[in-house]
Amino acid sequence: MIGASRSVISSVGRRTIAKCSKPILSSSVRYLSTTLNNHNESKIRVKNQYIRSYSSSSTVPLTAETYADKVQRDERFKALDAEDIQYFKSILNDSIIENEDDLLFYNEDWMRKYRGQSKLLLKPKTTEQVSQILKYCNDKKLAVVPQGGNTGLVGGSIPVFDEIILSLSSINKIRSFDSVSGILKCDAGVILETADQYLADQGYIFPLDLGAKGSCHVGGVVATNAGGLRLLRYGSLHGSVLGLEAVLPDGTIYNSMDSLRKDNTGYDLKHLFIGSEGSIGVITGVSILCPARPQAFNVAFLGVSSYEAVQQVFNDARKELSEILSAFEFMDLNSQRLVGQYLKSDHPIESAEYPFYVLIETSGSNKDHDDEKLETFLGTAMENGLVEDGIIAQDETQLKNLWNWRENIPEASQMNGGVYKYDVSIPLKDLYGLVEAANERLEAAGIVDFEDASKPVVKAVGYGHIGDGNLHLNVAVRQYSKAVEKVLEPFVYEWVSSKKGSISAEHGLGFQKKNYISYSKSDIEIKLFKDIKKHYDPNGILNPYKYI
Amino acid sequence: MIGASRSVISSVGRRTIAKCSKPILSSSVRYLSTTLNNHNESKIRVKNQYIRSYSSSSTVPLTAETYADKVQRDERFKALDAEDIQYFKSILNDSIIENEDDLLFYNEDWMRKYRGQSKLLLKPKTTEQVSQILKYCNDKKLAVVPQGGNTGLVGGSIPVFDEIILSLSSINKIRSFDSVSGILKCDAGVILETADQYLADQGYIFPLDLGAKGSCHVGGVVATNAGGLRLLRYGSLHGSVLGLEAVLPDGTIYNSMDSLRKDNTGYDLKHLFIGSEGSIGVITGVSILCPARPQAFNVAFLGVSSYEAVQQVFNDARKELSEILSAFEFMDLNSQRLVGQYLKSDHPIESAEYPFYVLIETSGSNKDHDDEKLETFLGTAMENGLVEDGIIAQDETQLKNLWNWRENIPEASQMNGGVYKYDVSIPLKDLYGLVEAANERLEAAGIVDFEDASKPVVKAVGYGHIGDGNLHLNVAVRQYSKAVEKVLEPFVYEWVSSKKGSISAEHGLGFQKKNYISYSKSDIEIKLFKDIKKHYDPNGILNPYKYI
Repeated sequence: MIGASRSVISSVGRRTIAKCSKPILSSSVRYLSTTLNNHNESKIRVKNQYIRSYSSSSTVPLTAETYADKVQRDERFKALDAEDIQYFKSILNDSIIENEDDLLFYNEDWMRKYRGQSKLLLKPKTTEQVSQILKYCNDKKLAVVPQGGNTGLVGGSIPVFDEIILSLSSINKIRSFDSVSGILKCDAGVILETADQYLADQGYIFPLDLGAKGSCHVGGVVATNAGGLRLLRYGSLHGSVLGLEAVLPDGTIYNSMDSLRKDNTGYDLKHLFIGSEGSIGVITGVSILCPARPQAFNVAFLGVSSYEAVQQVFNDARKELSEILSAFEFMDLNSQRLVGQYLKSDHPIESAEYPFYVLIETSGSNKDHDDEKLETFLGTAMENGLVEDGIIAQDETQLKNLWNWRENIPEASQMNGGVYKYDVSIPLKDLYGLVEAANERLEAAGIVDFEDASKPVVKAVGYGHIGDGNLHLNVAVRQYSKAVEKVLEPFVYEWVSSKKGSISAEHGLGFQKKNYISYSKSDIEIKLFKDIKKHYDPNGILNPYKYI
Repeated sequence: MIGASRSVISSVGRRTIAKCSKPILSSSVRYLSTTLNNHNESKIRVKNQYIRSYSSSSTVPLTAETYADKVQRDERFKALDAEDIQYFKSILNDSIIENEDDLLFYNEDWMRKYRGQSKLLLKPKTTEQVSQILKYCNDKKLAVVPQGGNTGLVGGSIPVFDEIILSLSSINKIRSFDSVSGILKCDAGVILETADQYLADQGYIFPLDLGAKGSCHVGGVVATNAGGLRLLRYGSLHGSVLGLEAVLPDGTIYNSMDSLRKDNTGYDLKHLFIGSEGSIGVITGVSILCPARPQAFNVAFLGVSSYEAVQQVFNDARKELSEILSAFEFMDLNSQRLVGQYLKSDHPIESAEYPFYVLIETSGSNKDHDDEKLETFLGTAMENGLVEDGIIAQDETQLKNLWNWRENIPEASQMNGGVYKYDVSIPLKDLYGLVEAANERLEAAGIVDFEDASKPVVKAVGYGHIGDGNLHLNVAVRQYSKAVEKVLEPFVYEWVSSKKGSISAEHGLGFQKKNYISYSKSDIEIKLFKDIKKHYDPNGILNPYKYI
């Protein structure tokens, strides 16, 4: 039916395409409704089990054992003793966890790839308590790892050895919202989805969205400078975060929460903490500028026959959809095959399989204007043969269902046992080349097969934010193994570096990429980083064993 | 005629207002054409004499004498000698200025309020030369003031005593532009207007615009974190600058020019230099993300009867014009009277005088859609009595002419002899209160009169970027005097501080506000600033006697 509607579009062309909207759209409606229930069930299942939905293996091996060749405990750090615990109890009363079983969740990462050995988790309720804790740890040389929603993907938010886990989850209040300026002030431990729902009630939107929104913290996304799904429209957190409250290792509380949208009085120190991965301070509060919530959203899901065509569609979309383009995501065929198995559903585009798929979201203030722009754009793209097939969501449910086929790729990638995730920036023309190169290398090593369960690797799949030059390379595996890791690393980093890309677009460096920063940064830059680390954390107690 | 068209609008209301567009617009055309020639002449006159168009007094008094009570030469700094000059010649050959008359332009600021006593200006042509110069100056403890287009408004880019002036004007090449990603890489000395014209040819726009665009440098706007006229649409430079090349006092060249749109590998140090006012490093190169140039621009100029109405019009515009709103500027009646005298022209809104005027710019990808949104919005605003009268530009010339009435306020404010400029951020509801408070205070002191030339002050006028909470308070004077300054300072800073505002929204602190930073920043923040200054510039050779 879609196929049929396409020939209609091609024949009528740009000027009259709006007239075709009804038949295209109604066919989409019928099409989508057939799989609606499956989608909903799976979405619910995924939401409830977000953190551990894939859990397949029993216990995660200790990071210290898996990577014994790469890291040893730093003997400068004091081991926790009864006196220390006594002190923390005197500040926090019962807001601490000592029980090993209860600590497991906080010692393990989201991918179940890394496991630390912390004996103590602290859950302060106030910034002052964080200050007391850090001052004590700094004086006693006790190592600390700050932790938000623990949804990080590079092992940055969990301990490696016996670091104390400092959880921000109990510092979780909305502080204030100014409906004239759109400035939200909240604690670091507020869950991203909670903040966005609060803003929705006021007619505003959080300027960042990502798959882990139901678990990740506002403070965590700022500390890791998360990019997410709508950076294309709302830009980087360096542009939208107006002020921060952060505690330095010596207990000093840095506070720029009262900053207005424009304030040029001195160095803008908050930017040092944005993306610092908890290595020089612990973010306890965030002031962020939120845009008015768009009145109208559209989502189109398209089948495209080549990566060259994906790039061309993006260039055209940026010109023609311009100010209403809020997301442009691409996915390869194998990523969609995995999601199909994971959701146990038919793909939204049923007519045929295409090597690439594109999800386009528009958001604006006038539904009619947005519809007209999108339909004109799609009509031309199909007429030019850039888009082979496509559908447009007709209501909120269908819109969410289309997003499901993009947002469930991470879970689907690891449902067979695990996933090696690489989040990189590469100049657009070379972007997908990395996925092809990775699969060639895995095949040459004879360790990859989509069906054959005796091979450790299922497939290397690619997807991501074309608009930001950001590729997510997910290598779906049946189990984690050093052999597979050796085939992929440092190969992936060398390949990215050879294209002048970045080895971490948005996930950060954490533990996974600690030894690979030189692929993206010069010796001078790395020296300047170490100088800053030493400037603020001379004892190195904050998030040790990671990238710096 | 406008008045007539208004009643038409009121009667028809939101749904059918688009139908009224022809009569409203054609009346605007006839209206504007009567003053078209005057506008053009004056615009040309202003452009050619931009830097000194107001020059009235003969010589500017030395800053060291005017402010002898506030600042003395730091004896730690070595005085320039023949051997030093010999060394600089060995690097730069004849790219230096020693002649006192030729140095005058670089020793004086744009407002002719401050004058330094530098005996030497250096014009390096490469980043390596800048590195050699700074390393030498750091070793010898020679003080240096970096200078771009010298259009700063707080005396930050000129020497106070005998600092060497390091001009970036000969490091002025466009390095590269990627038409797929929209990333422009250029030298710091490229003039803003040159960069924007280059981008226009490629279908892109520089994400910042300001009145001094014909003289200011790209490096200068980044070093001062300039905000300008379109921050509302494109956001802060912290969001759009992707990478920098900067030379540290010890000659180290920091280079992050290859950064892609997303790169989370280490601390994002470039932000320390954005807005640092040349106090920790000299920016020599900028990599910046540029948006696609909008296809359609609209400018409306409105008469509004109260400041409360101005706020309401802004709130409505942000909701209804949303993604196409690219500028929202307000001006008070007295600022427009000054511009009228300066341009020797009739005001665009002739029917009557209004206490406030608003300039709204929209830019988008579809002219018809934008026209419909703007006309619907204006129809409702007039129907509700928020807007008393208004016109919409019909072509590029009229659009420029309307902008003239906003952009010429700085020149008009000082045509009588001088101007005390205060650039502040204040929560919106209190924003205009500062202008009223300043005039009351000047009247109480009996030193202000719009007509009476025997009074030192003409008037305090207010205008600025409502969308950013940014007010420009210009106190037009017939000559600079300590007496007037004492009436205004620290009064203005105390008033802003009492409203939790910022004493510098976009101009920076420079020399003018060096002693007032504590009105906007806490002791802890100021200590952290001093620590960073010491970290990068232990000898304090870069831009001394300024805010840090």
